[in-house]
Amino acid sequence: MSTPFGWPLRVYWEDTDAGGIVYYANYLKFFERARTEWLRWLGVHQQALKQRTGGMFVVSRADLRYLHSARLDDQLLVTTSLLQVGRASITITQQAWLAGASERMLLCEATIRAGWVDAQGKPGRIPQEILDIL
Amino acid sequence: MSTPFGWPLRVYWEDTDAGGIVYYANYLKFFERARTEWLRWLGVHQQALKQRTGGMFVVSRADLRYLHSARLDDQLLVTTSLLQVGRASITITQQAWLAGASERMLLCEATIRAGWVDAQGKPGRIPQEILDIL
Amino acid sequence: MSTPFGWPLRVYWEDTDAGGIVYYANYLKFFERARTEWLRWLGVHQQALKQRTGGMFVVSRADLRYLHSARLDDQLLVTTSLLQVGRASITITQQAWLAGASERMLLCEATIRAGWVDAQGKPGRIPQEILDIL
Amino acid sequence: MSTPFGWPLRVYWEDTDAGGIVYYANYLKFFERARTEWLRWLGVHQQALKQRTGGMFVVSRADLRYLHSARLDDQLLVTTSLLQVGRASITITQQAWLAGASERMLLCEATIRAGWVDAQGKPGRIPQEILDIL
Repeated sequence: MSTPFGWPLRVYWEDTDAGGIVYYANYLKFFERARTEWLRWLGVHQQALKQRTGGMFVVSRADLRYLHSARLDDQLLVTTSLLQVGRASITITQQAWLAGASERMLLCEATIRAGWVDAQGKPGRIPQEILDIL
Repeated sequence: MSTPFGWPLRVYWEDTDAGGIVYYANYLKFFERARTEWLRWLGVHQQALKQRTGGMFVVSRADLRYLHSARLDDQLLVTTSLLQVGRASITITQQAWLAGASERMLLCEATIRAGWVDAQGKPGRIPQEILDIL
Repeated sequence: MSTPFGWPLRVYWEDTDAGGIVYYANYLKFFERARTEWLRWLGVHQQALKQRTGGMFVVSRADLRYLHSARLDDQLLVTTSLLQVGRASITITQQAWLAGASERMLLCEATIRAGWVDAQGKPGRIPQEILDIL
Repeated sequence: MSTPFGWPLRVYWEDTDAGGIVYYANYLKFFERARTEWLRWLGVHQQALKQRTGGMFVVSRADLRYLHSARLDDQLLVTTSLLQVGRASITITQQAWLAGASERMLLCEATIRAGWVDAQGKPGRIPQEILDIL
């Protein structure tokens, strides 16, 4: 848990808005890409899991702090760290960093709690195979 | 088929990009909202249909012409006209108009072909109940 | 401030994900549409303001709680209430409700803080004309 | 022009819809990411160019054919080939391929025409420095 998992991202036109900066909702997309890659790296394949068990993680809380803005063509690095594992939910912290050649700046950070829901959409215990990995 | 079905839309921050204009992919979102409302108005409820039959329309062709740009806060009107109905697909034409107080300008037009796919994702005949409506 | 400003929304395909529910980031889009309409209703036109002063509101904090899921075709009502007005930022609370014929359920709620940034992207005082309105 | 420029992409939750497949508008996002990376690889930096000249490419036509669906976690490869260079616009062809370990399937292909617009949003000649590169 000491070193966060990093995932690089590039800012494209689709991510920006008429203010010239990354639209605020899109950081939640960036964070989810990074969480997905973190889970994949750990060996948790969400699509396979969903096809087999019908269950999936659903975000129940997201607390976001926006510190600086990113712009078109910016290169970002998104980090993911596991903060807490419960029987029914996990809590992680994520940060989006500007990762340019000459500068390194924290753009946005979030605490995300995701609960497990079963095939019927009901909250349930996280499958043991995932708990073993986390 | 003589009068197109119209659906009003407002341009929000989410729709724009750093060029200050509506991002080009978002017209496909606008067109789909308008198609959905057109189908709903005709009595075709996609979510109910999907739950009951597992089938849905999937777009197989989209030909777009971008003529002018829309900006934040612009009021648009999107029109939908049925061009052709086949056994397995329908073809419609759609237009996005700037619908401001003093101006009326064609922004984007599209010809869209959507085919029916069944619960297994295979192309199939459009259900008779939909054909009867169209 | 006693009655929240309400804004109706429909869930389209674009809003959903492969889990069959509204994608979590899209509530931030819904909340922003509702905030924009609330500001417009109060007489604050963001695009005009941006063209005239170069300044705009930028979200600095967003705390989201996801309680229930929305699905394709669902009709939502998004409420906006002003919680606090400062010299450089405002804080509002927003809720997304399922607003179907027979049910009414809180789906997601958020506390949003937005700060004013000037044409150079620097934090600054909210223009007096906006403060007078709020 | 003989070998297309390839760009890898992963399908995330944000890209999918309730049909379980990639939402049709998102291929335009994928194609634009690939075009941007193709231009970057050629030495055309859109953000720098926009800051210096105020001008940018704006898509004027997009003709899309959807052949197969992509799903969550799928690995795609998007190709970009220059078809034609004019004084005011370029035309390119793009394809999105499923690029899994065992299969390779064409999902979507597009012909895209993009025109140059100057700082005032008026169509104009593509800057010579870009023409020299293309």
